[in-house]
Amino acid sequence: MFTASDVEIFLCQLQDELCAQMEAVEGSARFLKDLWQKPAGAALQGFGDTRVLEGGAVFERAGIARSVVRGPALPPSATKARPELAGQPFTAMGLSMVVHPRNPYAPTAHCNVRLLSVGEAGDGWWFGGGFDLTPYYGFEQDCRHWHQTAREAVGAEKYPAFKRACDEYFYLPHRQEPRGIGGIFYDDYTAGGFDAGFALMQRVGRGYWQAYGPIVERRKNTAYGERERQWQLQRRGRYVEFNLVWDRGTHFGLQSGGRTESILMSMPPAAEWAYDKRPDQLYGQGSPEARLLDHYLQPKDWL
Amino acid sequence: MFTASDVEIFLCQLQDELCAQMEAVEGSARFLKDLWQKPAGAALQGFGDTRVLEGGAVFERAGIARSVVRGPALPPSATKARPELAGQPFTAMGLSMVVHPRNPYAPTAHCNVRLLSVGEAGDGWWFGGGFDLTPYYGFEQDCRHWHQTAREAVGAEKYPAFKRACDEYFYLPHRQEPRGIGGIFYDDYTAGGFDAGFALMQRVGRGYWQAYGPIVERRKNTAYGERERQWQLQRRGRYVEFNLVWDRGTHFGLQSGGRTESILMSMPPAAEWAYDKRPDQLYGQGSPEARLLDHYLQPKDWL
Repeated sequence: MFTASDVEIFLCQLQDELCAQMEAVEGSARFLKDLWQKPAGAALQGFGDTRVLEGGAVFERAGIARSVVRGPALPPSATKARPELAGQPFTAMGLSMVVHPRNPYAPTAHCNVRLLSVGEAGDGWWFGGGFDLTPYYGFEQDCRHWHQTAREAVGAEKYPAFKRACDEYFYLPHRQEPRGIGGIFYDDYTAGGFDAGFALMQRVGRGYWQAYGPIVERRKNTAYGERERQWQLQRRGRYVEFNLVWDRGTHFGLQSGGRTESILMSMPPAAEWAYDKRPDQLYGQGSPEARLLDHYLQPKDWL
Repeated sequence: MFTASDVEIFLCQLQDELCAQMEAVEGSARFLKDLWQKPAGAALQGFGDTRVLEGGAVFERAGIARSVVRGPALPPSATKARPELAGQPFTAMGLSMVVHPRNPYAPTAHCNVRLLSVGEAGDGWWFGGGFDLTPYYGFEQDCRHWHQTAREAVGAEKYPAFKRACDEYFYLPHRQEPRGIGGIFYDDYTAGGFDAGFALMQRVGRGYWQAYGPIVERRKNTAYGERERQWQLQRRGRYVEFNLVWDRGTHFGLQSGGRTESILMSMPPAAEWAYDKRPDQLYGQGSPEARLLDHYLQPKDWL
């Protein structure tokens, strides 16, 4: 029988593990650790540990943010599945990671795992989480490895529904484009009880680096030039658009008084916008840039 | 007695005038003209003329977008002042300008003028508009000229309320920062009848360049280095945050099927994010960057 305290300890361990794994790949730059606390009297109470690595050789910007936040009344938007829990006191704890590598051939990757507990006696709770990949150049090998590892983390039974939920969530309607090649996403997860949900969180949290580490290793030293950098910066503009316009977590966080710097740790270090630049016009049909949109950023079964 | 057709013709003329004025300052780069039309069967019908200048010597990116859009049902969010008009067919016409100069000493400037007509017989209508300035480095002379010209455009009687509305609208709650030094903003404007509203639109539309032109001329050749460029890119990140998270027009446009490239013409050509960089820590208290936040980005009476 595990409790929320066990989850809190696991998130601490996972954060340290991930920092160490990423620093081993990075080589030179190190994560800075920023401990913060909500001021007394703020609507939300709680604390966090935000780790940020900037200006690295491999990672241009990477953030791993952990937080435990308590609020007096759960917002209705947080619990579509069980509206009877809205308005009750809640505790949200989670770990979020966003990694923006420098090399345009290495994809951006995001992971989140979280536990929500609602009510005075902790009578309501659910787990949520997942990870998704946003490449700038597509590689079949990477897509298959990413989804293969995702399926192993959640099990072949849950994978199809979690994969579909991921494709649906990370989508930019105003561009009619997915953010990336997907992965897994789940929310309001209570199946099998608390221990099963906690076990799933651990497999997803640890699966993230198993999925991502080999891809970064494979792509971090690929030679590239100004063309690839430009393309990466334009695509990072899309990443900004998704996070600021459509991501429920970001929006809810910014509008409800969450900690801005920790929420916006997900922003890329640099992004660009240009008017109506289409890769088939810029680089020709069949170019790697056009292939990203035509082939890779199309929901499909990668396995 | 003027009509919506007169407004449509004025917006055409104003767009050409502004392009010519900006190209005269720019010297080398030219506006590209992109005429577009909503596809048959789309929820919104209409057309537009989007002019974009990119990669100029003076203007790193500038957009002047004109559009006339018809919809079957006015969204409730568009008319807080008169809820009885929601759900009726409407026509929205307007001109929007966003200018991002290359030189960090030259501020970003935005202007919008628009007319909304509601109902079959054009029985409901209102004007809206305004302009606001977002400097990266503050100059008293520029702020006074900007607000002086704004007051002349709308008249000393309307200026205080329009100025206050601008300060309120262009504010980032998650940063507790205004977007810039403000200007004028009005909406749901019907006072004095259609002709008076149209006259106000013309004074605001033409006042924009009277306010902005001299400031760009004054700052476009100021020497700057990497420090100023970095600061500009970080502040442009704030501009992106405001437009994508808080701007009602951008949000409504993107979520209701507006034309994405024309809406996001407001994005800066390049922007950067870094973790928790405060100018007083980076450059010292009293530095021009710290002064921007401490002194200039504080709502005040500039006249």
